[in-house]
Amino acid sequence: MSNPIEKLIDNLCKLPGIGRKTAQRLAFFIMSMPEEQAIQIAEAIINLRKKARYCPVCFNITENEKCNICSNPERDHSIICVVEEPSNIILFEKTGYKGTYHVLGGNISPVDGLTPDKLKIKELEDRVKTGQIKEVIISTSPNTKGELTAQWIADLLKKYNIKISRIAYGLPIGIDIEFADEVTLSKALEGRKPLNV
Amino acid sequence: MSNPIEKLIDNLCKLPGIGRKTAQRLAFFIMSMPEEQAIQIAEAIINLRKKARYCPVCFNITENEKCNICSNPERDHSIICVVEEPSNIILFEKTGYKGTYHVLGGNISPVDGLTPDKLKIKELEDRVKTGQIKEVIISTSPNTKGELTAQWIADLLKKYNIKISRIAYGLPIGIDIEFADEVTLSKALEGRKPLNV
Repeated sequence: MSNPIEKLIDNLCKLPGIGRKTAQRLAFFIMSMPEEQAIQIAEAIINLRKKARYCPVCFNITENEKCNICSNPERDHSIICVVEEPSNIILFEKTGYKGTYHVLGGNISPVDGLTPDKLKIKELEDRVKTGQIKEVIISTSPNTKGELTAQWIADLLKKYNIKISRIAYGLPIGIDIEFADEVTLSKALEGRKPLNV
Repeated sequence: MSNPIEKLIDNLCKLPGIGRKTAQRLAFFIMSMPEEQAIQIAEAIINLRKKARYCPVCFNITENEKCNICSNPERDHSIICVVEEPSNIILFEKTGYKGTYHVLGGNISPVDGLTPDKLKIKELEDRVKTGQIKEVIISTSPNTKGELTAQWIADLLKKYNIKISRIAYGLPIGIDIEFADEVTLSKALEGRKPLNV
């Protein structure tokens, strides 16, 4: 095979979840699509890396000095939702949440070399130290690493006079209860709330 | 979310098998990987589209005037293996096949607007007309469209005094025969060969 297509296949293989077969399929598709569209993909990558940076306040991705959320005066800057990755913000934004965020950059995981100092935990504490924060909602994943991280942050911030909360555990909406696992069910029972009757 | 990341997500969604969720994951990964690597992916796409073209003989992808196979004097230029897509050539090259190829650009499929004139069938006939070709091996897929295309090409070329063959049907190597479907089994029986004893 000719070189440019092999080079692209090699490059696409570096992306997560893209094996050699998928990379081949993508590369041949990129060869067959209108040239303008193919170049647009390339330019979108270059544009992202040349223009986008991390918000110095919350570590969301932005093309401005501060991100759209941190620089929006209509958001509630006294509430911080702590998330693992910038991509999580997309999900929370769909809920209508009106506070701000703080992106950790992952969860604490010493076996992967992710000690607390590798995450943006100190930067979170610095934001709390300013005295402008009333509540920190810890929204890491409900798994071992996420729980460890949540507990670590809660312990670190308890000396400040703020509300520290964890997003609720329970049944995901829309499932058939038959398929709920026992740990989720047990958490859903614990977290039960009075119904209005 | 900021614009450059959304733009990249929109662009990645144009690729086959890449839905919005996967595009998001890829875009955030591209944001997090070393800048040099990210730019390399973009440049590989641009390089492909600027340098690569279709071989005027066989319609394989190449960066030269003719592809590596058509311009190689050590290949057997009297045999043509007819394939659907350039990516198929990668597979056939692994078998040690030493003839040349002809890329149709798909299979005949009138419902999809792929009438015979949309494929490189006329160009295949032109190669046969030169009188330099001894055998055409039709290697389209063993499904409805592939069979239709194979039959169409065989009918078209039968007036030339050449061997026209179809790759064999049979059991794929390495499977447990229990999982073979009945059509494949029936074809494998039909194509049975004497064993050397």
